Amino acid sequence: MNIYCLCFHNYETLDYMGAIEFLHHLPNATLHYVSSCGGMVYSAQGFGIETKPMPMPTQTDVLLVVGGIGTRSLVHDNAFINQLGVWIDNAGVVLSVCTGSALIAKTGRLDNFQATSNKKAWQWVICQSSNVHWVSHARWVHDGKFYTSSGISAGMDMTLAFIADVAGMATAQNIAQHCEYVWQTDSTLDDFAHFYFDK
Amino acid sequence: MNIYCLCFHNYETLDYMGAIEFLHHLPNATLHYVSSCGGMVYSAQGFGIETKPMPMPTQTDVLLVVGGIGTRSLVHDNAFINQLGVWIDNAGVVLSVCTGSALIAKTGRLDNFQATSNKKAWQWVICQSSNVHWVSHARWVHDGKFYTSSGISAGMDMTLAFIADVAGMATAQNIAQHCEYVWQTDSTLDDFAHFYFDK
Repeated sequence: MNIYCLCFHNYETLDYMGAIEFLHHLPNATLHYVSSCGGMVYSAQGFGIETKPMPMPTQTDVLLVVGGIGTRSLVHDNAFINQLGVWIDNAGVVLSVCTGSALIAKTGRLDNFQATSNKKAWQWVICQSSNVHWVSHARWVHDGKFYTSSGISAGMDMTLAFIADVAGMATAQNIAQHCEYVWQTDSTLDDFAHFYFDK
Repeated sequence: MNIYCLCFHNYETLDYMGAIEFLHHLPNATLHYVSSCGGMVYSAQGFGIETKPMPMPTQTDVLLVVGGIGTRSLVHDNAFINQLGVWIDNAGVVLSVCTGSALIAKTGRLDNFQATSNKKAWQWVICQSSNVHWVSHARWVHDGKFYTSSGISAGMDMTLAFIADVAGMATAQNIAQHCEYVWQTDSTLDDFAHFYFDK
């Protein structure tokens, strides 16, 4: 299984790195650090990482799409959004963390699926497509080929759920234990939505 | 406040990136991504990041020392260990994640302090110095200028505790909320020690 970890200028560090930490422990998976054109990509936290150009994925591949302040301009980059839509069509599974789901929504490929996203950026995210069945109270949502998570740290809980689905619960629990990570296994339990929605 | 985030070949991704995610939100802090000699440094998860050479810190600076499989050879690198000891002497605060505390212990600067580390690698870590007061059951330990955490993910809980100490509990809680991170605020609560020590 090839897992393409897609980043872009001003992606959010933990969106990307939290998922990578766990996915790298998935048996028989090869991670690829990619961006639209390859080269050095700088996180919102200011460090540069080396990336290769994103190739066309296949149905056995996984595409990870993360969020961050860089999404605010990327949703207006038609060439990127069109290309992302084709990558999504070709990949077997798409994982998104935080406002990564805004990018996916903008391609139209999330239309008619259930999905979630960052809670602080919620109003901006849901404007990217009104045809998505947005779920405001969820740690993550799995619908069809899409796994979408809430903000930043939530991507780690979702990634372990994806690993449990493809490699079994014992594998996911072993990875969490190895990383001394307290995994929240209930996707419906959202400790943060109430700060923004229930006032 | 300058925060020097020290990495090395085969450092563990989340050790480094989890702390960075939160530290970057600390008001009036500037993060520096550094290694012993600067240049591209590759994580245990295989991607490269750009680093600058570590300068001599001062008493107002923070030094972050992370862990990972790369520590196994670094403890035998006398030039690195000697240099690390001098950096520790000059820094005001030292944060370590996971087996980063093995590196610090090897310099002798943790002698007579309380400290913790990764639980799976525990026996190897404590052999780096028998004069450290190793605490086997702790999410993290703060003693003197040292904050040492348990394995990988535990660094995030410790980092927020450091932020609470220097910028107030409200600031730390706001960062956790912004990142949708369920912060474990009790340093004595260790959900993983029992897997290794209580059989």
